[in-house]
Amino acid sequence: MKANCNAFEFLVSCIKDYIPLSDAEIKVVESLFTKEHYRKNEVLHREGSICRKLFFVARGILRFSQLTDGEERTYVFRAEGAFCNDLDSFLQQTPSQSSITALGPVTVFSISYEKLQVFYDSLQYGDRFGRLAIEKVFVMVVNHLTTFYSETPQQRYERFVKYHKPLLQRIPQYYIASYIGVSPQALCRIKKKQLLANS
Amino acid sequence: MKANCNAFEFLVSCIKDYIPLSDAEIKVVESLFTKEHYRKNEVLHREGSICRKLFFVARGILRFSQLTDGEERTYVFRAEGAFCNDLDSFLQQTPSQSSITALGPVTVFSISYEKLQVFYDSLQYGDRFGRLAIEKVFVMVVNHLTTFYSETPQQRYERFVKYHKPLLQRIPQYYIASYIGVSPQALCRIKKKQLLANS
Repeated sequence: MKANCNAFEFLVSCIKDYIPLSDAEIKVVESLFTKEHYRKNEVLHREGSICRKLFFVARGILRFSQLTDGEERTYVFRAEGAFCNDLDSFLQQTPSQSSITALGPVTVFSISYEKLQVFYDSLQYGDRFGRLAIEKVFVMVVNHLTTFYSETPQQRYERFVKYHKPLLQRIPQYYIASYIGVSPQALCRIKKKQLLANS
Repeated sequence: MKANCNAFEFLVSCIKDYIPLSDAEIKVVESLFTKEHYRKNEVLHREGSICRKLFFVARGILRFSQLTDGEERTYVFRAEGAFCNDLDSFLQQTPSQSSITALGPVTVFSISYEKLQVFYDSLQYGDRFGRLAIEKVFVMVVNHLTTFYSETPQQRYERFVKYHKPLLQRIPQYYIASYIGVSPQALCRIKKKQLLANS
């Protein structure tokens, strides 16, 4: 979280990274978002149901996972400052193939699909926020999906370290292994190999 | 193309599928987009360069391809009414991994990255158009990437037929085979198998 600001101020400052907000509009934002707390391992959204909320992570880390051949596979982590959900399910209002779980204690601000339309309609630059936010997500998701399938576990681990450096100490090894797509034992070997290469 | 309308009217009507446009705004659209004609197999955008334009297909089919292990692989076809480009390269203004080629004679309206920002700024609902258009592309690309890697060639062919039915007769078989990720001979076998299953 940015220094010296409370959770709601943090949300406002992250929206302001995209668009200007007047004082009256900040009141609108306050009326549309709901602050929610989740305990470690609590599920914010479950695979198979329709994703009806967009989340802003004010504190903690969310873990996105999918069941593949009966096995739960972690494919994304999103931390403080992220606007996130299962966008595919949310945009189409169709059943989701992902679950979203609190990795530890988490505070989010959530906004429903319907209220997000009010946000777009009533703020001067509401649609601009939506456009810029989804542009950012698009680039991230496309790169992630492309590399996820084309890279080796070693390359995926290096990419993970590069983009998740501040989160490395906060995520258990077995979830990192799941993200890389290998067993925890194989992740150990990859890390040892990397240490040797860098020494 | 929608019945009884010229190429520019077609562009306007496709923008109006997303947002209202005043007469003055239609003039702005006219000043920002450029009509371009391409011959069969002419390249609109080449892999390795930055994708600097968004295209609206007024007539014909565009073929998107990538070099994978030295082999050209077709991964998307976009036809009349589509707004398209290599969005990943366009949004980041970084070198593209895709080429865009005219499958036959093609007419497009193009708009540069800079002029698209003017479009967003100067139209009342410019950003809404951008948001809604990219939402649609997001869903399409994510589904495409996900199924591309998880489905068998048979399933990919069935999905191709389902979503490209009006284009089936207009696309040469070797490009369809490339899209499915098999040889033209293997595509023949898949089609025969499907015919037998449906008979």
